[in-house]
Amino acid sequence: MDAHERQFDRELGEIKKKLLHMAAVVEAMTDRAIQELVTRDESPAAAILQQEQELNRLQIEIDDDVVTLLATHQPVAGDLRYLLAATRITNDLERIGDLVVNITENVHVLIQQPPVKPLEDIPRMAELVRKRVRDGLHAFVRGDVLAAQAVIVTDDEVDDLKDKVQRELVEHMKGDPQVIERSLMLVLIARHLERIGDHATNIAEDVIYQVQGQDVRHPRTPRQAN
Amino acid sequence: MDAHERQFDRELGEIKKKLLHMAAVVEAMTDRAIQELVTRDESPAAAILQQEQELNRLQIEIDDDVVTLLATHQPVAGDLRYLLAATRITNDLERIGDLVVNITENVHVLIQQPPVKPLEDIPRMAELVRKRVRDGLHAFVRGDVLAAQAVIVTDDEVDDLKDKVQRELVEHMKGDPQVIERSLMLVLIARHLERIGDHATNIAEDVIYQVQGQDVRHPRTPRQAN
Repeated sequence: MDAHERQFDRELGEIKKKLLHMAAVVEAMTDRAIQELVTRDESPAAAILQQEQELNRLQIEIDDDVVTLLATHQPVAGDLRYLLAATRITNDLERIGDLVVNITENVHVLIQQPPVKPLEDIPRMAELVRKRVRDGLHAFVRGDVLAAQAVIVTDDEVDDLKDKVQRELVEHMKGDPQVIERSLMLVLIARHLERIGDHATNIAEDVIYQVQGQDVRHPRTPRQAN
Repeated sequence: MDAHERQFDRELGEIKKKLLHMAAVVEAMTDRAIQELVTRDESPAAAILQQEQELNRLQIEIDDDVVTLLATHQPVAGDLRYLLAATRITNDLERIGDLVVNITENVHVLIQQPPVKPLEDIPRMAELVRKRVRDGLHAFVRGDVLAAQAVIVTDDEVDDLKDKVQRELVEHMKGDPQVIERSLMLVLIARHLERIGDHATNIAEDVIYQVQGQDVRHPRTPRQAN
């Protein structure tokens, strides 16, 4: 390996480190939002904002790093695909941050009012999607196709939980018009979590795409009905 | 301009053509889904599936074209950023396709049952987001920053309509438990449309990013509460 290659690897290593950092931030954000919903103990809005800004800063940094690396090293084949996948993944992580912000907004309104029901499935969903995001990112950094495939298959589990949450909340709404708005917010939170899970699937598909050079992004498994 | 540059421009022109084609497909899909909701006249599932597959095929083609172009021409600066933006935009367009499929699934269930209310705002939302996607893509292809900025500002209009739809449907749910499930589906359709609009915003932000080399993706305007 010559000096040029060593430098490329060093810079790629930096990009991977930043991607893992982004993943850690979205994990912490998701955790905080759901803790807040469960404990009904509002966390300062400034904290969420700070994390979102950190995500944004990291996305810009990584995208700039990729542009620089492409321009200075002009990689081909695998390395080129890897870097393109990296910029798609920063986009996914940043969108996950937006979704967590949406969840937090719903949570802030919800905890001002009495709880609709004890929460079990939403925290389980959150834990599951958090793990999917983390596992997807680690699979990307290690180029681990098997780990990526394991992430993809757990999508159904999230979808099933979302369907269950939605069904139960519709029953609550029917039983008591007083809880309609609050129940709707919980449905939307479950939806946001599901969508975070979809981004984890995207990331995992990108791992397989860039490692195997084969596009598994399509045909995808049919999406679940809503 | 030498032969090498001419070839680059020709290949870039092909990519732009394919991007506009993808945009035309998502527009047609959105139109069909909402027409179906309004006329309650179910369109064959095969048609939607075919359009979704076309989007997937185009995404793979464009991404491959970008990889080839990067590897063979090794562009720098503006051209490099443009091509990276193109692969992000194929991702946005493909996600829009998924969202339209989600809408279609909701619509298929909805039109089996009596209508909840006359629909006005959802078709308006659909028209608006369709236009935002089209305008965003045309701005990208022409590198037109002003057009991109015009797309970004109409995001609020979509959000306001979504809030209005949601408020009204919550009132319907409160008034009649029989319509809760159907109303929830309409809320979700409005949400999917809003999210299509978010992708249009992404595309427009990418236009400004790649033309001006400056990242307007952040700080973004604060997202609306849910």
